[in-house]
Order: sequence, then structure tokens, then C-alpha cells
Amino acid sequence: MPKTNIRTLAKQLGLSQGTVSKALKDSYEISAATKERVMALARKLNYVPNAYASSLRKQKSKTIALVLPEVADSFFSVAINGIESVAQKKGYHVLIYLTHENFAKEKAILNELKSGRVDGVLVSVARETKHPNHISALQTNGVPVVLFDRVLADTITAEVCTNDFECGYIATKHLIERGCRKIAYLSISKNLSIVNERLEGYKKAIREYELPPDKDLLITCNNSEGHNHAAIKKSLSSKNRPDGILASVEKLIITTYHVCKALHLEIPANVKVAGFSILPSAAILSPPVTTISQPAFEIGEAAAALLFKILEKKDHGPENTKIILPSALIIRGST
Amino acid sequence: MPKTNIRTLAKQLGLSQGTVSKALKDSYEISAATKERVMALARKLNYVPNAYASSLRKQKSKTIALVLPEVADSFFSVAINGIESVAQKKGYHVLIYLTHENFAKEKAILNELKSGRVDGVLVSVARETKHPNHISALQTNGVPVVLFDRVLADTITAEVCTNDFECGYIATKHLIERGCRKIAYLSISKNLSIVNERLEGYKKAIREYELPPDKDLLITCNNSEGHNHAAIKKSLSSKNRPDGILASVEKLIITTYHVCKALHLEIPANVKVAGFSILPSAAILSPPVTTISQPAFEIGEAAAALLFKILEKKDHGPENTKIILPSALIIRGST
Repeated sequence: MPKTNIRTLAKQLGLSQGTVSKALKDSYEISAATKERVMALARKLNYVPNAYASSLRKQKSKTIALVLPEVADSFFSVAINGIESVAQKKGYHVLIYLTHENFAKEKAILNELKSGRVDGVLVSVARETKHPNHISALQTNGVPVVLFDRVLADTITAEVCTNDFECGYIATKHLIERGCRKIAYLSISKNLSIVNERLEGYKKAIREYELPPDKDLLITCNNSEGHNHAAIKKSLSSKNRPDGILASVEKLIITTYHVCKALHLEIPANVKVAGFSILPSAAILSPPVTTISQPAFEIGEAAAALLFKILEKKDHGPENTKIILPSALIIRGST
Repeated sequence: MPKTNIRTLAKQLGLSQGTVSKALKDSYEISAATKERVMALARKLNYVPNAYASSLRKQKSKTIALVLPEVADSFFSVAINGIESVAQKKGYHVLIYLTHENFAKEKAILNELKSGRVDGVLVSVARETKHPNHISALQTNGVPVVLFDRVLADTITAEVCTNDFECGYIATKHLIERGCRKIAYLSISKNLSIVNERLEGYKKAIREYELPPDKDLLITCNNSEGHNHAAIKKSLSSKNRPDGILASVEKLIITTYHVCKALHLEIPANVKVAGFSILPSAAILSPPVTTISQPAFEIGEAAAALLFKILEKKDHGPENTKIILPSALIIRGST
């Protein structure tokens, strides 16, 4: 069945398209009798206004975009729920784009979003992203941006994140207090601000306890499960084997557990493990894993709320707001 | 900075909007010199064509919608990746909507999608969904639909799912062969075809081994973690305690493990546990859990490919295609 549009209605009713359009909008210029006729046929033919025609008239898409590195991660999947809960209340649609940690893809997505497809954009940057130019370009084009979790240093952008530096410090201190002297830090990027903030916190604890800094203990992982497994295995098989591991993201905790299992290393007897994660299975892993748990839902919620503040121009200058929601160390069997 | 549109360009150049529009489209009607002038200013003012104006002209949104119960689930997060990989290759955008297992929300979303916002829709239905009327209404409106994983019985819709009946049977048989005599089946819905197919498979195995059918062993869970925890705890604390559990979805495996931990029940000594899941941590849980692993990426990929076949009208009648991709039983320490 072809879609009913204003043209179809006008033709069947012997009215002009302008009259039909005004009648559908309940305009005072149209008589009650005509409105009645138009509405009756619209109902009969199952007329639905075209969303894009409507967007074009209002210059509003009622849509926001969410640009993420991945969804197969507890943090992001819960943050999406937080964002979505706010958008639904506002009657907005959420477009989700995945960068798969690839900068070129992220840039192409943001470039495409200049076209008016969305009213605003929430971004958590890819591990490869170094510069904010593609984000500034979108803002210059009149599309507001809020960064969340994975923010970029030196950008004039609204941001919502957690206290990464402090958490890196607290988690490392905890490992040291449980007897670790050679703690490996598993990074997933040399660019990502959150990973570097966590690393700086780690370094602060190492300095404070006067442990020897060791470059071999800083392991850079990436987006390939195979690479990460090999890199962690190499470190845990070496003579200078670490006795503690701090994983900067969830998937590296899982990989570390798999490597320990393969190498028959006991957690926590041979190596203690802690990581940043809100994994629902954290407490039932073998052994239960110590985590730094981020308030993912709240971060998503706050980021979306901030974006709507900018869109609704309710506050003065929310474009520069930085919100920090604290995470918590949850100690379990792995340390 | 206000957005540059065709009107701005026309005004600054002293040309008509029609001329500018044709020049931007490289029309033969416009002289090379004029095209040059238009393109130069368009570049200078960072002109981007309006996506909705463009959609309206082409009557194509280049967007598909994905309607899901939730994202915090390994199956769906991996299926999204499969869908997205196909859409990206086709140059399509993916709108993701979450129903949170709520039928009214699912209905409202599909109703909204009648408006031409998307060219086609992929749906995995909510646990509350019983009837396909809202799906048929969307199809009647000219928007093709493909159901995946959670399909509906008796719909004339393209579908991609896995061999749920067979897997329910194989998993139950496995539990029986490992000595279980009282196997509880954890359902999340009385409507969902996949849950019922898995249940029918379970019942077949129970009959085949002549175990007494027991209604108390059929536990209906829902979308509330608290309710599910209480229901599983009640069953595992009863005199007639099950010695085996088959969880129909991933989150119920996690809840079962938490309940067993709270009740100090040993898995697999006191109770054996198996479930439908592709949890990345399945092998490192305490103990590693036996799963029926669905080809989630492939299901997403096949569903998206089928939708594009319908959109591109390449095949005759792909609207009725049913694709079944088999799952595999992976035996681990929990059984």
C-alpha cells in the first residue's frame, strides 16, 4: 500500500494541499466542517505525518546521537540506559553509532552528523583519538557536544566523567598494601585521558611507596583480544613476573583471568588482580574480582541532562560545565 | 554560528536558490564559472546539505531502526555489532530503541516509526509482547520488518533465530545424564517464543527419561532482579530443592550463581547449572558455567542482510524467509 501523504488527501477531498495541511494542524483559518472531513479521511487512510518533513519545518530533529567505542562492555551498556532514560522523558530519539575504537570512523561519523540529522551529540572517544578538531568542527556547525567518560584534554566541551586519577591511586595503593611490589598497569591507549589519568594515579602510589618504577610493567593493550592475551601472557611468563595487575578497562580483567588460568597462576596467591569495571559477574568470578566501580547509569544520565540543558539554553554557559561523579573501590577475593 | 543553507549561499552570491541548488548538484544547466563560484563559497562557509531535506527529496532515510529489549546482555550487544557491520557497509545509519521488555513502549516505538524516519526495522520482541498486530501495522504502512532471536509465532515476517527447541532438549538431556532428577527451568516470560521453544525442548527430555513432571520446577522470572533473586532463592531453599537448573537467558545464570553463593550451595555438587548465554566470562566464573552459546554476531548479520534484501527487492519474497542458525552446547565445570 502506498503511503498516504498530504497530496493524496488533498486530491481525494478536492482541496488544496495548503488547506489540508492547515486543517491537520487545526488552524483557525479552516472551517470546522472542512477540518472534520480532512481528519476523517486522514484516519481512514492511516495518514502519518512524515517525520523528516516535520523536522525540516521545525528545524529540529528531536534526535540525539550517541557515539561510542563499543557496546559489548558493561560500562557502556549501562550508560546507554542512563542516556536513554533522559532522552525518552524528553521525547527524543537516540541514534547509536559505534566507532570500534577507530579514529577515522569517529571522524567520519561526526562529519556526517553536521547535516542536521541530530540536535546534539554525546561522545565517548575512541582509543585512537588524540585531537578534538573533529569535535570542534561539529560544534562550529551549531551542533552541541557533550563528552562523557572518555573525554579529551584541552577541549572547550561540556564533560561528564569520574575521578579517574584518584581511583588509579586508590586501587594501586590497595594492591601495595596487600603486599604487591611489582604492579603491572594494563592500558588500552596512550592517548585516552581516562587511561592516562588512571596511570598518573598509579604512578603517584608507586612513588609514594618508593617502589622502583619499571617500564616493562606498563603494558599497552589495544582492540585485539589476541594481541592483549599475548601481551599479558608474555608479562606473566617473564622472569620479572608482576605480582599485581591493575586493568584499566573491563575486558582486560577478563583477559587477565583467562591468561592466569592458562598459565596455572593462582589469583590472588601468585598474582593479585584489580580493575575498572561494573561487571555484573564480578562477585561470582573465580575468584571474585576487586573492582573500581563507576556510576555508569548516573554518568549517562548526567551527560544527557547536560546536553538537553545546552539544547534548551536553560543555563548560562553549560557548554563549559565539567561534572565529575566519583567511583568506588570494591574489594573482593582477587586481592 | 548559524548554519549555512542554500538560501544563505544564494543571497551572498546574488543568485536564485534554484541556481545554487543545481550548481551544487553539478547540473549541466549551470555554467562552469557559476559552479566554481558556488562551490568556493560553499566550502568557505562550511556548507553541509541538510540530511532531512535530502531524505525528503529521495524518499529514503538511509536509516534502519533496531528495537531491542535491552543492551546490557552479551547476546544483544554482540548482535548489535553484527547488524551494525552490515549497515555500515551499506552506508546506513542505525537507530537503536530500547523497550526495557515493555510491550506498551514497543508498540509506541513501532507506531512512531511509521513516519518515514527509517526505511526498515529489526525487532527482537519484549518479554511482554503476545500479538504481532503492532508489527503488521508497521508493515502495512510500507516499512519492512525482520524479527531476530525473539520472534513471534504465527507472523508473516522475515525471521532469523536459533534452534531453541533442540538446544533446550540437548541441555536438559545433558543435565539428566550428569545425574540431575529435579531440573528447574527458569523462564522470563510466558509469551516469548524462544523461551517456550526452549521449554518444549526441556519437556521432551524430561518425558524421554521418564522423570516426573513438576510444575514447581517451572519458575517464571521477569525484568526485576529482586523478584528473580527471590524466586530462585525460594526454589533452592525448598524441601523439594532442584538438583539442576536450566536458565533461559544470561542474566538468570548470574542471578542463580549469586543465590547459590548466598545459600552456600556448591555448584555442581549440590546443584548443576546450565544456561543460554555467550557471556565472555563464562569460563572464568566460579565454577565455569556450561552454556548454550548462540551465534549472536551471525544472527545480527543475517537479520540485517535479510532486511537489506527486502529493501533492495533483490529476491522474490524474502519477506517470508525464516533463517535458523544453530547454537552449541559448551560443557564446563558447572555441570
